[in-house]
Amino acid sequence: MGGIPDLAEVEAMDAADPLRALRDRFVLPEGVIYLDGNSLGAASHAAFDELRKAAAEEWAHDLIRAWNKDGWFDMPVELGDQLGRLIGAAPGQTVVCDTTSINIYKVLHAAMAMRPDRTVIVAEGDSFPTDIYMAEGVASTGKNTVLRLAGVDAPTIEELIDERVAVVLVNHVNYKSGELRDMAALTRMAHDAGALIVWDLCHSAGAMPVELDRASADFAVGCTYKYLNGGPGSPAFIYAAERHLADVRQPLSGWWSHARPFAFEQAYAPGTGIRRFLCGTQPVLSMRTLKGALDIWNGVDLATVRRKSIALADLFIELVEVRCGGYDLTLESTRDSAKRGSQISFIHQHGYQIMRALIERGVIGDFRAPSTMRFGFTPLYVGYRDVWNAVEVLEDILRTGVWREARFAVKTTVT
Amino acid sequence: MGGIPDLAEVEAMDAADPLRALRDRFVLPEGVIYLDGNSLGAASHAAFDELRKAAAEEWAHDLIRAWNKDGWFDMPVELGDQLGRLIGAAPGQTVVCDTTSINIYKVLHAAMAMRPDRTVIVAEGDSFPTDIYMAEGVASTGKNTVLRLAGVDAPTIEELIDERVAVVLVNHVNYKSGELRDMAALTRMAHDAGALIVWDLCHSAGAMPVELDRASADFAVGCTYKYLNGGPGSPAFIYAAERHLADVRQPLSGWWSHARPFAFEQAYAPGTGIRRFLCGTQPVLSMRTLKGALDIWNGVDLATVRRKSIALADLFIELVEVRCGGYDLTLESTRDSAKRGSQISFIHQHGYQIMRALIERGVIGDFRAPSTMRFGFTPLYVGYRDVWNAVEVLEDILRTGVWREARFAVKTTVT
Repeated sequence: MGGIPDLAEVEAMDAADPLRALRDRFVLPEGVIYLDGNSLGAASHAAFDELRKAAAEEWAHDLIRAWNKDGWFDMPVELGDQLGRLIGAAPGQTVVCDTTSINIYKVLHAAMAMRPDRTVIVAEGDSFPTDIYMAEGVASTGKNTVLRLAGVDAPTIEELIDERVAVVLVNHVNYKSGELRDMAALTRMAHDAGALIVWDLCHSAGAMPVELDRASADFAVGCTYKYLNGGPGSPAFIYAAERHLADVRQPLSGWWSHARPFAFEQAYAPGTGIRRFLCGTQPVLSMRTLKGALDIWNGVDLATVRRKSIALADLFIELVEVRCGGYDLTLESTRDSAKRGSQISFIHQHGYQIMRALIERGVIGDFRAPSTMRFGFTPLYVGYRDVWNAVEVLEDILRTGVWREARFAVKTTVT
Repeated sequence: MGGIPDLAEVEAMDAADPLRALRDRFVLPEGVIYLDGNSLGAASHAAFDELRKAAAEEWAHDLIRAWNKDGWFDMPVELGDQLGRLIGAAPGQTVVCDTTSINIYKVLHAAMAMRPDRTVIVAEGDSFPTDIYMAEGVASTGKNTVLRLAGVDAPTIEELIDERVAVVLVNHVNYKSGELRDMAALTRMAHDAGALIVWDLCHSAGAMPVELDRASADFAVGCTYKYLNGGPGSPAFIYAAERHLADVRQPLSGWWSHARPFAFEQAYAPGTGIRRFLCGTQPVLSMRTLKGALDIWNGVDLATVRRKSIALADLFIELVEVRCGGYDLTLESTRDSAKRGSQISFIHQHGYQIMRALIERGVIGDFRAPSTMRFGFTPLYVGYRDVWNAVEVLEDILRTGVWREARFAVKTTVT
């Protein structure tokens, strides 16, 4: 086994883990090693407490009065500020609402309107698809808007950034490979070309320090149900830099973003600040599980989270390569932890079946077509011993070839 | 007191009410008469059961597997079909997702694209404002799109419908006055002019029989947290007539509406049928309270609901006018129950203070600027004795003048 850590060393890593106590705040099933927090984060006692309170006390008892009495009205901006701390955003620039897809639409339109003499949106061909699809939607309603994709129209995104570009839409961490982009450098390059930039933080928010303000980012979007553990389909977020807030406009100009909603005026007038990115009534119960989940982050240092994330992933790579060598696994993620998010992808021709077999054995990762097995490491509730155990199961599945059994080839809707 | 019913007669009406047993399925606070179900519907045991199951069993235990195992993936279309029964929509035409505002944006853009030689959107000046604001947003991203408002650009909506009109956006029941439009007649008039029509059902879905298919409506939108009792901010719905589904396109073309989401393709291709109106990931927990609330409707006859709604409202008008005469209350709603939704509005110069005083005494209606006191009658959980008691409190407040006390003039955010 060479120089890889043994079980005692792995257990010592857990014992020394400063985040170890946080695991007890989550509700995880017995017998499961959950390496898919990058797809749907785990439930927590705090989320359940908020949910019970919002449903049984506020909705049931206060009814319509809850909008004032229980602070429902300001929740999108209050949760936005609470989340802002985790993505390097000073207060007043982040709002929780709608979905990542819808928020992409808002900020792309907003950015296009800020660069009326430019026509190009740049995105990534290997982006999570909804970013591309929403950019297509913006192009379909824009005036002469053109969408250009890295990997399709040029080899890299950097090569597509020129003086025709209004806005660059880019993933901070790639959903498949886990590649982490340099936010400050790419933002600077976009600005040097006179373009604006939108960062998709779906796979970095809650996984590492993010420094939107420091990087001078223009806009950002992201979901809250991955590393932030907000619950299934909990509302997404938008960040817009303070310098843009006075003049920015977006076309999903619903009642909730109006300057004076309760004046019931006939003409739209955008509200002040980040509220102008709101649109309609938000799902209060799903927001409240998010509130509970965000409360867990109080006092958590993101640099510590990042260190553990890297250590977990490095351990995983090391153990897989030594113990599962010879089974045609190829590391898709980079070995350079500085350029990687909190997930590790391995490619295998039969990755789908192997992942089904892992899940049956309680090791939950996920699969992305055509052949990527994805393993996410959420430092708040995954430990080093989990990584050890997961690799033991993987090794067993590969060694026995159990994944070749017919039932593992049955396709499911969500993969 | 003239010929108005006495308490014994009112109690007899409750005893004979075929919907009376449904009240026990709801969770209502002690000492409250809730006449604001037209703003936020009441909680129910079924909604709580679904919520607990979705959170504690599915999210916490099944984690990412819940998308397949627990049917989360198909919930928007399954709930859409379940809701479709309440709005006269055959299966396959209704989907639950996003917010009313966002869904208005989708269907208006879809309709504009279906009438490329026309430029006008018609809406109502006295509409709930978000309809107008979203139409403004559509116009801002459309090519030469013009918004014309009834009450502003012409006295009535009928006078605005001509051969330049692509789409008419209209409220089935007015949020303030409670006025009910003739869906079949206005749809026919729009079609005769070659226009499409979008019905906003926020104040009619769940309050009365709605016959979208029978009226040959093109599109409809609505919320689920009023008469449908889906919970605070539960996702809204979209209806699109089957004849439009093959060709319709909408610009919020997110991953969830793709024909093959798990192929992760680089180009957008709309999914089949009503799924193409989906966009991003829906708030599962807020959808599940809606599921519980919709289950209550199984076996409920909407004609019976409508009859009780009218009887409750007629009783309210009669009691208020006889017992609260001489206090400057003016009926804003029509006396003609065939032209009225399930709410009654009275105008009073000091309506805000009077409503605050009512709420303090446990009679919860709401206020709409500048002077409308709104009382909603949800036949599933409001009884005739509730109406009697509410008017007793109103009479007392008016007679004593207690509403003149300073605390009732303090403004709240949500009114």
